[in-house]
Amino acid sequence: MKFGGTSVANVDRIRNVAKRSLETTKLGHDVVVIVSAMAGETNRLLGLAHQFGELPDAREMDALAATGEQVTSALTALAIHQLGGKAVSLLGHQVRVLTDSAYTKARIKTIDDTAIRTVLKQGAIAVIAGFQGVDDKGNITTLGRGGSDTSAVAIAAAIDADVCEIFTDVDGVYTTDPNVAPAARKIAKISYEEMLELASLGAKVLQIRSVEIAMKYGVRVHVRSSFDHSEGTIVTSEAGMNDLEQLTVAGVAYDKNEAKLTMRGVVDQPGVVAKIFGALADANISVDMIIQNVGATAEGAAGGTTDVTFTVGKADLARAKAVISQKGAEVGMKELRVDDDVVKVSIVGMGMRSHAGIAAKMFQILATEGINIQAISTSEIKVSCLIAAKYTELAVRALHTGFGLDKPAA
Amino acid sequence: MKFGGTSVANVDRIRNVAKRSLETTKLGHDVVVIVSAMAGETNRLLGLAHQFGELPDAREMDALAATGEQVTSALTALAIHQLGGKAVSLLGHQVRVLTDSAYTKARIKTIDDTAIRTVLKQGAIAVIAGFQGVDDKGNITTLGRGGSDTSAVAIAAAIDADVCEIFTDVDGVYTTDPNVAPAARKIAKISYEEMLELASLGAKVLQIRSVEIAMKYGVRVHVRSSFDHSEGTIVTSEAGMNDLEQLTVAGVAYDKNEAKLTMRGVVDQPGVVAKIFGALADANISVDMIIQNVGATAEGAAGGTTDVTFTVGKADLARAKAVISQKGAEVGMKELRVDDDVVKVSIVGMGMRSHAGIAAKMFQILATEGINIQAISTSEIKVSCLIAAKYTELAVRALHTGFGLDKPAA
Repeated sequence: MKFGGTSVANVDRIRNVAKRSLETTKLGHDVVVIVSAMAGETNRLLGLAHQFGELPDAREMDALAATGEQVTSALTALAIHQLGGKAVSLLGHQVRVLTDSAYTKARIKTIDDTAIRTVLKQGAIAVIAGFQGVDDKGNITTLGRGGSDTSAVAIAAAIDADVCEIFTDVDGVYTTDPNVAPAARKIAKISYEEMLELASLGAKVLQIRSVEIAMKYGVRVHVRSSFDHSEGTIVTSEAGMNDLEQLTVAGVAYDKNEAKLTMRGVVDQPGVVAKIFGALADANISVDMIIQNVGATAEGAAGGTTDVTFTVGKADLARAKAVISQKGAEVGMKELRVDDDVVKVSIVGMGMRSHAGIAAKMFQILATEGINIQAISTSEIKVSCLIAAKYTELAVRALHTGFGLDKPAA
Repeated sequence: MKFGGTSVANVDRIRNVAKRSLETTKLGHDVVVIVSAMAGETNRLLGLAHQFGELPDAREMDALAATGEQVTSALTALAIHQLGGKAVSLLGHQVRVLTDSAYTKARIKTIDDTAIRTVLKQGAIAVIAGFQGVDDKGNITTLGRGGSDTSAVAIAAAIDADVCEIFTDVDGVYTTDPNVAPAARKIAKISYEEMLELASLGAKVLQIRSVEIAMKYGVRVHVRSSFDHSEGTIVTSEAGMNDLEQLTVAGVAYDKNEAKLTMRGVVDQPGVVAKIFGALADANISVDMIIQNVGATAEGAAGGTTDVTFTVGKADLARAKAVISQKGAEVGMKELRVDDDVVKVSIVGMGMRSHAGIAAKMFQILATEGINIQAISTSEIKVSCLIAAKYTELAVRALHTGFGLDKPAA
């Protein structure tokens, strides 16, 4: 049972976590609770650190930030005691969540289940501080923002848990953002692959890495609300799903966090594109969509020019422009156009693999609404289109309706 | 270099700690810094814990409270980095400060110097979270209030430090409380034994346990101000002191934290007193002064009665009364009188051992001021008198002057 920052934001909510975990033990389950820092605490600590420089040492940042979850885990154990239950808190180095030494974004290598099982054998609830681990030299590490989800799924895998319940302030995964499309429905079951695409595309219910680990180890994840007892969304393997209820398209996502760059008049020769994207990779800038058009001024294969369009995260835009401005001259670029007023709209679904014409249907729906498609990318289970940001809501609602996702009218 | 809560109370003061420790490295020293929690932080954490019951589990209290020093150690390392220095924070379990499992009041068993020496060999300052340790099962422990002094002295012993500097908000140890006697002088050098008596009697500059450890391992301690560079007080062995500057009486202390109980008309038979104090010991109540008078109504050796007077800490008074009320009947006690409006005034000094008549001189000084002595206790290096609390200031000033401690008039 993993509880995020808003679910442990104050003393009353921590009491609620204690109550909820004890209810689960009373159903006959062994319970391991993973907690985040109280909402706002991590930012408070990082704010203190940034008073000592813009780029504080990563090792010390982790030692500092890890205290947030340590506080919550001790308080949660005390809250369980107050309700008459047994509980023992465990820190990352006590469990032992062994990670690499990449401070502030460490990766879990192994998790020892001995300490957890010792606590469970005593009939107690193990309350584990999420987000944190320890490297092989005993240094405190953290897993990066949202890392408590990753802790929870990895620990669930290590102890072979029946289910990993992720308690959050929403009651599950939706077919799209309910704020954009009121007809959005809660999804009862979704595959890891679909969840990955939805998560990376902006439906930020579960951290991507936690879904990858769940998929790798077959951990059944239940995303649900910490404020009520309704069933949420089960994230599981395709095999574990009920095919009958599976729709062709599972959800519609959008991501406003991309910016488009178009390099005009690039020399159309072998190796040119590799040079550009190699330079971006060297600068540690991730590129998402890439489209290469033969330019309007093409004069045949040799000596011709081409346009190259690609997208990067908005946070990387300034650095990407600097890299391209430098490399552009080498490849004969005549002009660089930048547009950060774009949105990527995507449809995601396992069913797409066996249904032809899904992409064509998406393009048709957008065309019917008069929305121009600026770039397209596809995978086995998703189709993404880059469009002008002003059409976001219109596009999401049209696709949601067009692919039959709207909930029945009341 | 140990810095207490007021010395790390905010970002600016932590910067001052960083500056001060770097100054020391520039003098050619290897530096280990031990820090407390930021002033108020430990109380904030314990306040949170007490929202989950009056007697929260001690193990969880320690996991919670230890975060205070963890935060300061990381921030202090960052502050040193900002000033261009090298520093690495270390937690109790990273050092490894091995303790017993007596949560909230753990005792240090051993300290491993490997991690500290590794940091020093890198030319960096080791910034250690005070107050905390780890037991042999990996549980986080704390050393009790003021435990950072104990951490500092024990670590100084483990690494064979040249000196253990205790930075605090006063500039040294005084001959008495300057608020009571403006003529009080800063003591340049004091022996461990004298410091122990002064500390336990109310001059709360150094935690008693830390002085005991310093004495046991011969750690030279320098108590000084974190706000200026003046020399403070050196606490050292008798052998390390300059005999010429040593006064007969080193200081005058007072303790308002005792209460007096008098049992009237107790049967004067062998074993009776043992029965009373055995019962108090069973209730874990420490008794300080004990006086047994033959009662005014004594009728000879057999069948006579006696009065027994003793003092306990004010915090234990209610419990002591309950124990005595019960046991009193068994020993024929006729009446129990309680007086908590008393103070214990003490003179302390190594020189007393070789000077006869020190106690008599103390009694004479008090008598001259018309102060009645209610109880007396003596040791090799101190004499304590219990008097009415209203005479505290008068008695302290008279003793301070009478034993030649006043600073020369300006």
